[in-house]
Amino acid sequence: MIHPQRIQKIQARLRRKKIDGLLVSQPNNRRYLSGYSATDHDISESSGVLLIPARQLPILLTDFRYQIQAQKEVGAMQVLLYPKGLFALLKELLPDLNIASLAFESHYTLHSTADKMQHMADSIGVSLTHFDDMVETMRLIKDEEEISKLRASVLLNEKVFQQVYKTIGAGQTEIDIALAIEATMRRLGAEAPSFETIVATAERSALPHAVPGDVSIKKNTSLMIDMGLILDGYCSDMTRNFVVGKADKKYLTIHRIVRKAQLAAIAQIRPGVSATAVDKTARNIISDAGYGDYFGHALGHGVGLAVHEEPRLSSRNRKHLQEGMIITVEPGIYLPDWGGVRLENMVVVRQDGYEVLNQDITWLDI
Amino acid sequence: MIHPQRIQKIQARLRRKKIDGLLVSQPNNRRYLSGYSATDHDISESSGVLLIPARQLPILLTDFRYQIQAQKEVGAMQVLLYPKGLFALLKELLPDLNIASLAFESHYTLHSTADKMQHMADSIGVSLTHFDDMVETMRLIKDEEEISKLRASVLLNEKVFQQVYKTIGAGQTEIDIALAIEATMRRLGAEAPSFETIVATAERSALPHAVPGDVSIKKNTSLMIDMGLILDGYCSDMTRNFVVGKADKKYLTIHRIVRKAQLAAIAQIRPGVSATAVDKTARNIISDAGYGDYFGHALGHGVGLAVHEEPRLSSRNRKHLQEGMIITVEPGIYLPDWGGVRLENMVVVRQDGYEVLNQDITWLDI
Repeated sequence: MIHPQRIQKIQARLRRKKIDGLLVSQPNNRRYLSGYSATDHDISESSGVLLIPARQLPILLTDFRYQIQAQKEVGAMQVLLYPKGLFALLKELLPDLNIASLAFESHYTLHSTADKMQHMADSIGVSLTHFDDMVETMRLIKDEEEISKLRASVLLNEKVFQQVYKTIGAGQTEIDIALAIEATMRRLGAEAPSFETIVATAERSALPHAVPGDVSIKKNTSLMIDMGLILDGYCSDMTRNFVVGKADKKYLTIHRIVRKAQLAAIAQIRPGVSATAVDKTARNIISDAGYGDYFGHALGHGVGLAVHEEPRLSSRNRKHLQEGMIITVEPGIYLPDWGGVRLENMVVVRQDGYEVLNQDITWLDI
Repeated sequence: MIHPQRIQKIQARLRRKKIDGLLVSQPNNRRYLSGYSATDHDISESSGVLLIPARQLPILLTDFRYQIQAQKEVGAMQVLLYPKGLFALLKELLPDLNIASLAFESHYTLHSTADKMQHMADSIGVSLTHFDDMVETMRLIKDEEEISKLRASVLLNEKVFQQVYKTIGAGQTEIDIALAIEATMRRLGAEAPSFETIVATAERSALPHAVPGDVSIKKNTSLMIDMGLILDGYCSDMTRNFVVGKADKKYLTIHRIVRKAQLAAIAQIRPGVSATAVDKTARNIISDAGYGDYFGHALGHGVGLAVHEEPRLSSRNRKHLQEGMIITVEPGIYLPDWGGVRLENMVVVRQDGYEVLNQDITWLDI
């Protein structure tokens, strides 16, 4: 479904910048503005672009393979096909629409594609410019419809987690569990996982980028599960950390420090607080406990149509949180040869503070 | 493992073009030259680049998350980390290596990244240029080691197909079968599927881009399975089409035309034949049978480290086949409201003709 208000906002910005049209190629941006949900096989195999003239209705440009899906999804918006390629179509279309200056998305256009676009533009006297983040800036702040969709994604993700969690036992492999999670996601109606599921046991969970292996889980060892799915376009992202069997003292100690850091950071979230400050709150608790060298990543990141988006909750991001942002809060401690503990929830920045979207409390407050 | 001969070939080309170094960012190209197998989360989240100076040893540049994997995989090659980002490192490294002219891969570099690279290059007086396909051109022709790996990938893919094929019956859904295939791939040691598995029943197989749905297979209806996996970096891609139960006359007729087109095209494969000619052979057989309007895609494509690569077997590609190329041959007939039949094998262009890598003959010659 097309989003007229979002389109109008883009058009107003284009007019202010005296640009006649914008080509939206980034798949999540396309979806955000038009409802067209196709993904790209990769950046060099586009499934279409959205042309937003500053003063006319937007048009979705795609090829015959996506025609039926596009027409179904964009409702009343016009869909045009480019049997001879996008640039051949634009060469005719831009003059017809009186577009003399065109912008493209610099961060989702290959250098080689931009070269060809420049040739096309030169051949019809169109001036070409580019933006980095016009649509992304809008996507930073989620409206209530988006927050509902993100909540539904979080809750479905937790349902999947619970179904699989009940079946976990010593002797299973990391891959067994990862496959069970991803199969359950699809069975319960997710479009896809939002990233490759992480299942890592014991010392393997100390790797920042653990890939599930053919490794059996031993009794009384820890397990980290980092999982997310896409529902109606919107991503979830959650990490739970627990012991299959009985936790020893060291596990309990580390786990409780991480949870304390997470709760303190969440409590601080409200409009106007800087991302740095929230990151620092968690980091200080972990440092004070003596594990400062073992929390090697940022505290969190935005989530929306993309599973990793702005704002980053990191020591480098001095920007302030705003109402309607949605972020993960995921402190961790990773000890080489022992293992890692990371706990991750998703949080909405609300007018008067925060709202945690998660309801699952498995092993959080042990 | 690093491939010294491949690196030397690149270096010789760079010297001929009077360029002092090449940055290889495309993940398959990186892997082809260095053995480093990390993939990129996406093009904006690179897991590293390979710097190939024209006259010195290559260096892999990456960040701390990939350090262990990189050092393990590239053997004796130097690995350097960029804690402050790639361009900060290059600013110091390029002058140290006396690199005054640098090329990057235009087809795997974002326009926005190229902008930043240009600033970096300007700031240290390095001239910047780009290539589209230097490494891809080398990858077109497979050596015997690569052919062995592609054969192993094809045979494992067939083994997966056979295990699942035995279990297929009416009442199962497309998603059930797709999940079983992908789980079996991982259990039997594949790195990943090489593309999203297609399982499409009856009239749903008439869609060019069928996505498995929650749709039950009825008795005596057709099923199309298009599947592939990655083994040791190399991709397989195979389509089988059959009936769950007993085939009717129409199915048999269509299926036999497609198989006839496939066999005729394969028989023509040898060095020096044009891609167009092979495509035309299959297309003529389908047209002569009265289904010319229902074969709407190219006959095939190259396969290697990427599941879709050059050469395309299409009516537009006038280039000639060369010894060592590996291509799919996959004619199809797609009738709206009835269904589709596509049959796909992988074929090596050999000095004296061709070699079909597939051994599976399920329902091919009915």
